[in-house]
Amino acid sequence: MSQKPSLPQGTRDFGPEVVRKRQYILNTIRTVFERFGFQPLETPAMENLDTLMGKYGEEGDKLIFKILNNGLDRPEKEASARAAFEKVLGGKSTKDLTERALRYDLTIPFARYVAMNHGSLTFPFRRYQVQPVWRADRPQKGRYREFYQCDADVVGSRSLMNEVDLCSIYHTVFIQLGLKGYELRINSRKLLAALAEISGGAEKMMDITIAIDKLDKIGLDKVKEELAGRGLNEAQIATIQRYLEIGGSNEEKLVAIKELFGDNETAKKGIEEIEFVGNMVTGEGVNLVLDFTLARGLNYYTGIIFEVKAPAEVKIGSIGGGGRYDDLTGLFGVPDMPGVGISFGVDRIYDVLEELRLFPEALTQSTRALFFNLGDAESRVAYGLLQELRMAGTSGELYHEASRMDKQFKYAEKKHIPYAVIIGSREVSEKTALVKELTTGKQTSVPFEDLAGFLKS
Amino acid sequence: MSQKPSLPQGTRDFGPEVVRKRQYILNTIRTVFERFGFQPLETPAMENLDTLMGKYGEEGDKLIFKILNNGLDRPEKEASARAAFEKVLGGKSTKDLTERALRYDLTIPFARYVAMNHGSLTFPFRRYQVQPVWRADRPQKGRYREFYQCDADVVGSRSLMNEVDLCSIYHTVFIQLGLKGYELRINSRKLLAALAEISGGAEKMMDITIAIDKLDKIGLDKVKEELAGRGLNEAQIATIQRYLEIGGSNEEKLVAIKELFGDNETAKKGIEEIEFVGNMVTGEGVNLVLDFTLARGLNYYTGIIFEVKAPAEVKIGSIGGGGRYDDLTGLFGVPDMPGVGISFGVDRIYDVLEELRLFPEALTQSTRALFFNLGDAESRVAYGLLQELRMAGTSGELYHEASRMDKQFKYAEKKHIPYAVIIGSREVSEKTALVKELTTGKQTSVPFEDLAGFLKS
Repeated sequence: MSQKPSLPQGTRDFGPEVVRKRQYILNTIRTVFERFGFQPLETPAMENLDTLMGKYGEEGDKLIFKILNNGLDRPEKEASARAAFEKVLGGKSTKDLTERALRYDLTIPFARYVAMNHGSLTFPFRRYQVQPVWRADRPQKGRYREFYQCDADVVGSRSLMNEVDLCSIYHTVFIQLGLKGYELRINSRKLLAALAEISGGAEKMMDITIAIDKLDKIGLDKVKEELAGRGLNEAQIATIQRYLEIGGSNEEKLVAIKELFGDNETAKKGIEEIEFVGNMVTGEGVNLVLDFTLARGLNYYTGIIFEVKAPAEVKIGSIGGGGRYDDLTGLFGVPDMPGVGISFGVDRIYDVLEELRLFPEALTQSTRALFFNLGDAESRVAYGLLQELRMAGTSGELYHEASRMDKQFKYAEKKHIPYAVIIGSREVSEKTALVKELTTGKQTSVPFEDLAGFLKS
Repeated sequence: MSQKPSLPQGTRDFGPEVVRKRQYILNTIRTVFERFGFQPLETPAMENLDTLMGKYGEEGDKLIFKILNNGLDRPEKEASARAAFEKVLGGKSTKDLTERALRYDLTIPFARYVAMNHGSLTFPFRRYQVQPVWRADRPQKGRYREFYQCDADVVGSRSLMNEVDLCSIYHTVFIQLGLKGYELRINSRKLLAALAEISGGAEKMMDITIAIDKLDKIGLDKVKEELAGRGLNEAQIATIQRYLEIGGSNEEKLVAIKELFGDNETAKKGIEEIEFVGNMVTGEGVNLVLDFTLARGLNYYTGIIFEVKAPAEVKIGSIGGGGRYDDLTGLFGVPDMPGVGISFGVDRIYDVLEELRLFPEALTQSTRALFFNLGDAESRVAYGLLQELRMAGTSGELYHEASRMDKQFKYAEKKHIPYAVIIGSREVSEKTALVKELTTGKQTSVPFEDLAGFLKS
């Protein structure tokens, strides 16, 4: 009995061309990470449910994909499974039904790894991780249930040099990808804390941060409404508005922010951080923009925060972000592990490169030369030459059977193969291959011994 | 509240050195696949449960990790969830509780992909796929619940040239990995079919195959016992024994097998296949061994089958295998899709390379140069030079803070960094860095403008 197959909602197959383009992005990023002394980590797709639950808020918990325990149908397990199922219906999970789940991000698995291995790691520990994560979000355009995250973090150090290095990583990657018009925006959470201090009291910090985080999406008026809804009065909101409206060049912004905050100690620290990073991150094409309206939703950031905007000609949100946090591993029993990390939005970077046509042409070529199959005797000779070609590092195929020439040409065309190598009985006796460049139609007779050199890319 | 974190049974974290070694293996294989004109495919970790169930036998179905549907705690879902749960207790799965599962291998997802996209693919379609799979097997030494599979298949062609190409891929990969003593064993399922014909009747083919498949593990006497248990009589078993005892060089084996089978038509076809592949796969270091006892358990193979044995000095089973099948996609409603595929056992290849010390030395080095941090002013100069180094393609780090020298040396040592670059106030004024080679202790003064060249790997 046959079935019409389909894919789970929100998941994707990546065919050859897409894999190549994604690999191009990921390899570029990986190479830069390595060049900055970051080391690769891979963690399992499955984590114990305990490790994940309660780390992403109530909404997050619901979006974690849980794995059904195996062997529930064994009679001796029935009673415990029944009891467990009642708990699930009541909105709770339990080990008797599900004790494992798919990772939801790369940060918690990283924290777990550091907590389990902190005795043997060299600190500061610079790790990068490029793996898929899974979320039971409602699928919609640009939002998937399986997607790659691509993170770099330095833990075990409070030095701002780490922030500087992460900014340089962003710059190096985007320049290598050809994305000249990117903008790297930075702010410090300490300025938001200072804003809370001078406007509404420190305990309003997260309220203010959450409201400001929506500025791009909903605009200033709605942010003010939201602040009012969160209990801030007019005078307080006016201060926040003054803060949000600071503009101009980076230098002008620094003058204005110093004036706004005056002697506030928290603000001074934040400004110092920003100035340190701003002064160190220099070089051709670096585009660091101070953006005091940058807030980032997550509540664990405590210092510098980052966000990368795609070049203005592409209408797409941020293509990267991150920041400093004070405590990576406390939840796993290892205190005092500060760090700073960034992340690349691979799916969006893909869309940006596609829209701006920045993928290298060569990525659509797979095989460089198709050796035509003109019969068993000829293809035995052709195959020997093909193997030499491959050993020399050039990709090639022999057509699988002695079909009509037009069929073989069609195959080359469909696979975007640039060269046809034709070896018939005459070519065998003359020890010379006929090489046809398929885009131009140009034909060249190439002696067998020169063939590998001729076709080398 | 803190918790002591742990990993799910049968799963592994891969730290930096292990990831680098694994990537070395996978990149070597990927590069060879590409050179042979194979194209990459990636499918989602989750498949619809329908797609997977019933494809791996009853035992396999039980080992599939099923994913609990989300939102089961919503009141309106309670009734259907309860009904579904009763079915699970009865050993059945149902969409109301679980409709997705983690992929169990790469073959069924590939078949699903081909069935869904056969209208737009170019055939013969040569694809490779390197992704993890998950099985709820009992964990034991060398057997994991998450592990990588690494497959290459050609579908849509019956040509034996595909078998030839796959043999060449094995050879090229193992030579590149330095595994000179590998053995590529081949056989044809047609010879096993012929053996069934001349000994016990064609319908005993799978019984005979399954028994022969155990020869390596249990020995000839136990295989004969098993054959007797499966209803074969003494004369039949004697024929099978004659078949199994064929030995000598490849040429001697061919003489003996022809003699054994005489005019049997099925055997003639099998021998023709083997001779064709054997005659085409030649070249320095190729080690193709005819092995008529090779059976391979899976019942979908119909022609040539492969198995790769690690060099004899390593006691480990096969490190690769595959074969020809007639029908990849029939179960998904697309008939007539023959193909042939191979697979690399990545975990075992890792163990073999480790045991024979074949991993390149360079894999344990991450960062090439550590720039010492001797204060803010000095490290600003050092950071500029470090950035030049990185842009030139060499990896480097600046120590994160101005700690004592011995602490910075210790960090370099722990990370196996070969060069220390020391830039103090004197070096800044003289525009010359002091470069210390850490294994030998040799020191060199290098002018700033020559530093990137000096440290280039």
